[in-house]
Amino acid sequence: MTDPSDRSPAKARTLISVDAMGGDQGPAAVVAGMVKSAKINPDIAFILHGPRSELAPLVERQPTLADRVTIHDAEGVVTMDDKPSQVVRQGKGTSMYSAIEAVRSGEASVAVSCGNTGALMALSMIRLRKMPGVNRPAIAVLYPSSNAQGFNVLLDVGADIRADADDLLRFALMGKSYARNGLGVDHPRIGLLNVGTEEHKGRTELKEAHDLIRDHAADAGFDFVGFVEGGDISGDRADVIVTDGFTGNIAIKTGEGTASLIGIRLREAFKYSILSRLASVLAYTSLMRLRRKIDPRRVNGGVFLGLNGTVVKSHGSADATGVSAAIKLAAQLADNGFNDKLAARVAATLPAQQENDT
Amino acid sequence: MTDPSDRSPAKARTLISVDAMGGDQGPAAVVAGMVKSAKINPDIAFILHGPRSELAPLVERQPTLADRVTIHDAEGVVTMDDKPSQVVRQGKGTSMYSAIEAVRSGEASVAVSCGNTGALMALSMIRLRKMPGVNRPAIAVLYPSSNAQGFNVLLDVGADIRADADDLLRFALMGKSYARNGLGVDHPRIGLLNVGTEEHKGRTELKEAHDLIRDHAADAGFDFVGFVEGGDISGDRADVIVTDGFTGNIAIKTGEGTASLIGIRLREAFKYSILSRLASVLAYTSLMRLRRKIDPRRVNGGVFLGLNGTVVKSHGSADATGVSAAIKLAAQLADNGFNDKLAARVAATLPAQQENDT
Repeated sequence: MTDPSDRSPAKARTLISVDAMGGDQGPAAVVAGMVKSAKINPDIAFILHGPRSELAPLVERQPTLADRVTIHDAEGVVTMDDKPSQVVRQGKGTSMYSAIEAVRSGEASVAVSCGNTGALMALSMIRLRKMPGVNRPAIAVLYPSSNAQGFNVLLDVGADIRADADDLLRFALMGKSYARNGLGVDHPRIGLLNVGTEEHKGRTELKEAHDLIRDHAADAGFDFVGFVEGGDISGDRADVIVTDGFTGNIAIKTGEGTASLIGIRLREAFKYSILSRLASVLAYTSLMRLRRKIDPRRVNGGVFLGLNGTVVKSHGSADATGVSAAIKLAAQLADNGFNDKLAARVAATLPAQQENDT
Repeated sequence: MTDPSDRSPAKARTLISVDAMGGDQGPAAVVAGMVKSAKINPDIAFILHGPRSELAPLVERQPTLADRVTIHDAEGVVTMDDKPSQVVRQGKGTSMYSAIEAVRSGEASVAVSCGNTGALMALSMIRLRKMPGVNRPAIAVLYPSSNAQGFNVLLDVGADIRADADDLLRFALMGKSYARNGLGVDHPRIGLLNVGTEEHKGRTELKEAHDLIRDHAADAGFDFVGFVEGGDISGDRADVIVTDGFTGNIAIKTGEGTASLIGIRLREAFKYSILSRLASVLAYTSLMRLRRKIDPRRVNGGVFLGLNGTVVKSHGSADATGVSAAIKLAAQLADNGFNDKLAARVAATLPAQQENDT
């Protein structure tokens, strides 16, 4: 599918596979995000997937991208309404499929897509396959928090709606690797999400997972702080919060919705009177500073963990800033050889079942 | 336990049973909240539960409360650390037990407590018992939202960690009654919390519950909007959000934590420079206006639904404003004969099992 007339990326650069299609803002926003990233980071280059006729003119217009983009022609587009099962059956030839394929073949270290999350997860599962020792992959996000880094890792936020005790232990290991390679926290504090911090509370699988994670903490190089509550997702009790994909998905969407409601109310409050309008002008830089700190675009990107290859899911509505943040994260994980380290860590921790047998 | 020397409340007033103890701020904050409420609402009076020696001086100091408070002497206090099971066995003689008892005996229409939620639920279950037709009671809260009333009803937020399809149907009926009597929404829109809005998504019991609630909507007088997501808890797609107590508890705590982090960041942003400090002075009234709109103290009070009697759980850290908001809600529910109407509604809706049998 590669056209020999394409510019070849420089050899030493980290190659990132980018799905140009499927985001709400179209390929122009994706290319703009690549430009932003390429300007900041001279060590990255891209394989861009989508209809060549549409992408080539967008790329050629950007001097920053000269010699740093290979286009893989793919005519098909996965839309937000496509069902994952359909995409698995008929997705070959789409830009999403092609973007994952470049990771599977080893051409690129990591893939980035703004497309349909369910379809991206399903295709990634089928093509990249699960890492040995992992039964359920997970999607991890960075959630704004009051800890030193300013963010906690939360997983799973929706790869699967279920997780048993063994899966939750794997999530802890994956979260630990992600906190180390994505946030630079060497010895993260890990908490298990529950409705109370007392050990007798919560569902049976959570009590089981509690003991399993506790018993592996020392060997795996993290602190287990036990059960944590919803409020700790944005707090400083843990750096990594482990939960099943149903609960995690509800939690981040509740948090995002609440933050957005506060934003609306804040704007209303400042529009109320002439004095408050004046205050809002003076407060502008303060409010922009706040926005930078809690702007979801700046930590844009859920990471699929537990597959043979790293896939970064950017928000569907991501603009250039959002895409650039996702690319930054992808480059960071690729540079750190994140997935190999994660695989080694998971392999080093036998499933509970096997351990009990030995 | 009543001392005949106590002032008798006026006959026509709505009697509210108030647990003076167990909150973080002690009985003085509770009495201050009663004063606030009594000033605004001339039609309420109180039975106050706790150590008479401590409470009588606090009450006597308040002219507003003259002839409006009966003290029920109870020496014991349920603390935040007491386990619910302990309190059920040994709780007799505590102010919490006494407060619930006044509702059980019919003296008061509704009880208010700032104490230990788990213990309050367990004692309420044992003493008031479940309403006929209800298998699991629920705790409902008002969550700030962008709908016309400014709040959605969310339940269950932690009475139980489980809920099957039949329970979720009961939650919908309870939520409907609460939206009507607590928020004044006659024909509320009800949504079922899930990880996506497509009908094929989510756990099996949710798909079952989806169809069950849909089939009862017309008769029960609500609109069923189907599955909703975490972001809709603060949104305008539904007025009532139904979920199990595990998910609901994580959701509200995540939302509260996120709101509190934004508050911290907002204060930091305004302290950053001299100009931003000046802006914060000018913005003061705007920020206070915002705070009033999203202040959790102003909608303080989870309501226990599905018992033979109404219990309002005020936040453990509630101050006078918080206690007063909980009392206001209690008075509103008592005046509307809320619990009788709810019982009639639940009784009118046969459990799915029985329906299938007929």
